Amino acid sequence: MELTILGCYSATPKVNTYPTAQVLNIKNHLFLIDCGEGTQVQLRRYKIKFSRIKHIFISHLHGDHYFGLIGLISTFMLLGRDADLHIYGPKGIKELIMLQLKLGKAWFNYPIIFHELESKESVLIFEDDKVEVHTVPLKHRVYTNGFVFKEKLGERRINISAVQNKKIDMSYYNKIKQGFDVENEEGKMISNKSITFDPDLPKSYAFCSDTQYYPECIPNIKNVTALYHEATFLDEHKHICEKTRHSTAKDAAKIAKKANVGTLILGHYSTRYYKIEKFKTEAEEVFNSVKLAQEGKIFIF
Amino acid sequence: MELTILGCYSATPKVNTYPTAQVLNIKNHLFLIDCGEGTQVQLRRYKIKFSRIKHIFISHLHGDHYFGLIGLISTFMLLGRDADLHIYGPKGIKELIMLQLKLGKAWFNYPIIFHELESKESVLIFEDDKVEVHTVPLKHRVYTNGFVFKEKLGERRINISAVQNKKIDMSYYNKIKQGFDVENEEGKMISNKSITFDPDLPKSYAFCSDTQYYPECIPNIKNVTALYHEATFLDEHKHICEKTRHSTAKDAAKIAKKANVGTLILGHYSTRYYKIEKFKTEAEEVFNSVKLAQEGKIFIF
Repeated sequence: MELTILGCYSATPKVNTYPTAQVLNIKNHLFLIDCGEGTQVQLRRYKIKFSRIKHIFISHLHGDHYFGLIGLISTFMLLGRDADLHIYGPKGIKELIMLQLKLGKAWFNYPIIFHELESKESVLIFEDDKVEVHTVPLKHRVYTNGFVFKEKLGERRINISAVQNKKIDMSYYNKIKQGFDVENEEGKMISNKSITFDPDLPKSYAFCSDTQYYPECIPNIKNVTALYHEATFLDEHKHICEKTRHSTAKDAAKIAKKANVGTLILGHYSTRYYKIEKFKTEAEEVFNSVKLAQEGKIFIF
Repeated sequence: MELTILGCYSATPKVNTYPTAQVLNIKNHLFLIDCGEGTQVQLRRYKIKFSRIKHIFISHLHGDHYFGLIGLISTFMLLGRDADLHIYGPKGIKELIMLQLKLGKAWFNYPIIFHELESKESVLIFEDDKVEVHTVPLKHRVYTNGFVFKEKLGERRINISAVQNKKIDMSYYNKIKQGFDVENEEGKMISNKSITFDPDLPKSYAFCSDTQYYPECIPNIKNVTALYHEATFLDEHKHICEKTRHSTAKDAAKIAKKANVGTLILGHYSTRYYKIEKFKTEAEEVFNSVKLAQEGKIFIF
């Protein structure tokens, strides 16, 4: 799993601070998560192929999380896209995109499938044979979801030398990967466990932005490999969290600890901070595996 | 009059090509003309004070001319603006902005006054004692206006030494500037012409983007000091103009010549062109005073 940060600052884009957008590469899917103004330029800057993006997840309808979406949709058109595009986001997003296309007398030359969200519970919004994606309801000034992306448990891995030793025909390989016992060339039943290794442990990534400190989300992100959690403020500005419904670095760390996640990635910094190292220091007082999101950084887990 | 180019490419923003946006400094007004995605970042890059922008003119509702508007409006809010903001643009622009603010549960903390345009004739849309702005109806795939910004004829300039020689009291200076004859200290009437110079010739700037070759616009831009005219294509791609309703560099030059403008500024280049010098060469075959818009360039006239 590979996460590329395209932007990780809050509120207002500046010359060197980009609003929220990130790309998750998971089992060959390229999922775009949030799409602040300028995301299409950031995708170009980091040489991410536009045609590989088929699913876009929008957490909430504040500008720094979606003002780049209509531009990206339009560019897809100009590039002659024909693949489906799935957009997952709060109710209202379809009306907004359709109105802009109507006013520009532009119509899709590729299908856009809107998955509008309004549930206050966690729901499954995407699933195939390798991956599933659930919403993580959060608490912010407007209806907001985080998302949790989970690999499914893969097939068992064949122990090649054991299989050869036990004289098992190659035609059984798929059955073996699926966990079945099989008969060898001598007619003897061979237990699956003796010829396979356990599959790789499935990994998972949770994205939680924007939200106030909200422990109610913990059951939905429990034990994830990596958690991106917003940390808009440092402790010294903690008092602003209440009004704006954001979190501090320490709040994020508390959530990470209680949810027993592998690694915590902080982001969504207020642009008032010139340096971001202190976010790490403050979070590490609570939780020991903390990383800082930064434009262009790639996290592999 | 000072024109700063923030972006001058068509269609899709790329890492080094910005969509249409420019700032005209005229008689102490800072007018923003068009507002493609990323305009607010470009304003910061070129250190243009956000608070000085009180009027935004949007030519048409194609993304490369207005996708940056909602972001700029939101940033004005975050910055605690309280001054009025006037937005001039095609009908529909108000609904669009209001919908986005509603979905983000954001309300103005400053007044936004929408001036929605739908006339097919040139109309006066702004006027004060020093400047007037008229629309320039253009011909594109959607309803589109250019704009012409005109200084008004200023006051007469006092010839200080003549005034002193003729022994005229200072209390008459305002009257003299307004063109009146006045009495001197000896009771003699002094003709205005003998103590003043003509006022500076008023300057004017026309912005014409996007449009096909459309000579019908000429009466509205006749004799302007400078004309920015779109030149999306070179001659070799002339055939694309018909479908897309754009102009070539030569088309722009023909308009400039027929309208007898002072200087022609070309822009809105297709991003297919790696170098833009040829736009100048082709236009100069028709018209002799041609300049090329480029990001960050400032034209003074």
